[in-house]
Amino acid sequence: MPAIGYYNGTFGDPDTMTVPMNDRAVYFGDGCYEACLVIGMKAFRLDAHIDRFYRSLTLLSIPFFSDRDVLRDILDRCIRIANEPCAVLYWQASRATAPRTHAFPEEGGPNLMVTVRSKTLLPRERTLKLVTTEDIRYAMCDVKTLNLIPNILANQRAKEAGADEAVFVRDGSVTEGSHTNIHILKKGTIITHPTDNRILAGVTRAALLEVAKENGVPVLLRAFTKDEMMKADEVLVTSSTLGVRRAVSVDGTAVGGKAEALYETLLQSYERIFMRETRA
Amino acid sequence: MPAIGYYNGTFGDPDTMTVPMNDRAVYFGDGCYEACLVIGMKAFRLDAHIDRFYRSLTLLSIPFFSDRDVLRDILDRCIRIANEPCAVLYWQASRATAPRTHAFPEEGGPNLMVTVRSKTLLPRERTLKLVTTEDIRYAMCDVKTLNLIPNILANQRAKEAGADEAVFVRDGSVTEGSHTNIHILKKGTIITHPTDNRILAGVTRAALLEVAKENGVPVLLRAFTKDEMMKADEVLVTSSTLGVRRAVSVDGTAVGGKAEALYETLLQSYERIFMRETRA
Repeated sequence: MPAIGYYNGTFGDPDTMTVPMNDRAVYFGDGCYEACLVIGMKAFRLDAHIDRFYRSLTLLSIPFFSDRDVLRDILDRCIRIANEPCAVLYWQASRATAPRTHAFPEEGGPNLMVTVRSKTLLPRERTLKLVTTEDIRYAMCDVKTLNLIPNILANQRAKEAGADEAVFVRDGSVTEGSHTNIHILKKGTIITHPTDNRILAGVTRAALLEVAKENGVPVLLRAFTKDEMMKADEVLVTSSTLGVRRAVSVDGTAVGGKAEALYETLLQSYERIFMRETRA
Repeated sequence: MPAIGYYNGTFGDPDTMTVPMNDRAVYFGDGCYEACLVIGMKAFRLDAHIDRFYRSLTLLSIPFFSDRDVLRDILDRCIRIANEPCAVLYWQASRATAPRTHAFPEEGGPNLMVTVRSKTLLPRERTLKLVTTEDIRYAMCDVKTLNLIPNILANQRAKEAGADEAVFVRDGSVTEGSHTNIHILKKGTIITHPTDNRILAGVTRAALLEVAKENGVPVLLRAFTKDEMMKADEVLVTSSTLGVRRAVSVDGTAVGGKAEALYETLLQSYERIFMRETRA
């Protein structure tokens, strides 16, 4: 099947569909989104994504379907129409459609846009190259908004450097990747940035911490420095579309590779959860 | 005339026009914009706006018409079709139209969107009420991007407080308004934030500084504290659509009103420039 798009009740091909010029997403990026993997038409941890979506909506004061099943039904319908064995389900809400004024319009409800696109997963043995970049983002990185210019500029810089992902560093501490969470393994412990306004509370990050608990691996919730990352036993990268992977270089310097067995254990546990909760 | 819209070669009613779902403005806010006043079909300081637009494009690595007259011709055509005595000309460019990936698409040029909408100017005697809010924005406020969520949230907070504009305060210093620049008059001197990455280099801000020079009013380019603003002789607010106005309250406390004659002199000089360079 080709990709599926949805906008406020209309289904179609997202590569030819349109949205109103007055959608506040178009000129303010005034909205939030979610993306998750769908395997065998079953989305991984959809509830967690929907919970986080509603949290973003609340923090942006965007009113949305009070009945979450309305959203869930639309997403399910998109998944069924797409009928893809492996796909990314993406959806976003914007505040309203109205001529441009900064303050919220008095009228008009939110807009819902959805796409389902087939996805080729990164092979499990594929390792990642990272580059670091200054974290110049705003102080609401916990809200999954459409204001993503610093993220795309960072990701493009990574691509141009022949790397896979950019890692933000703020005041010497690693926060997260341009669209991933970053963690380190050190002496058998996972160290990961706490979920404050400097990072997104990743759904796969949460799954990794579950897996750590399952395997008796201690977790330290604290920011770590770039230097700690360079000297870590392993550098782990997580995201909903990536799953769990390890990095082998940062800014061209080799990192990790000192706890491959523990990484493999964690990855296998994660894969078991992933397969159990999807139709992989 | 009704409002005029333009998108990549098509003219129409912006309230019914559409843009592709895959325009990167829609899901990343990946673009930049400008807005200026058009009086008698003559845009005020269009060159300065176009210069700033190209600076934004460069800083975002968005390739655009290398010949600026191509842009100017399209803007002129929109202004002529709208045929409004007093209007706001708004235009934005986004990077490309392509399925969502963080890194820049290999193909596809930029998109240009334009609107011209009639505008009622704020009466010259109208004073402003301000509220302060923490400046949580990213470290690229000098680039006029479409990533405006912190600005709209701040502006909405001002509206809900019965005020006209929100003023960002970072580390105790006033940076700028949600869509204005903020300045103070103290002992006959204008104090205004330097043009670094914490503020937008306003076109009307620049005109105010010209007017200061013309009138022998010294200008200090430095950040000022909230406390200095509260105790200033006058608090001035500038923007392209507002012009120059003064504030009379901040967070419900009266401010300014101690240098009304000097404010009036500056305002009159600004109005002379504005009338000379438009058809007001």
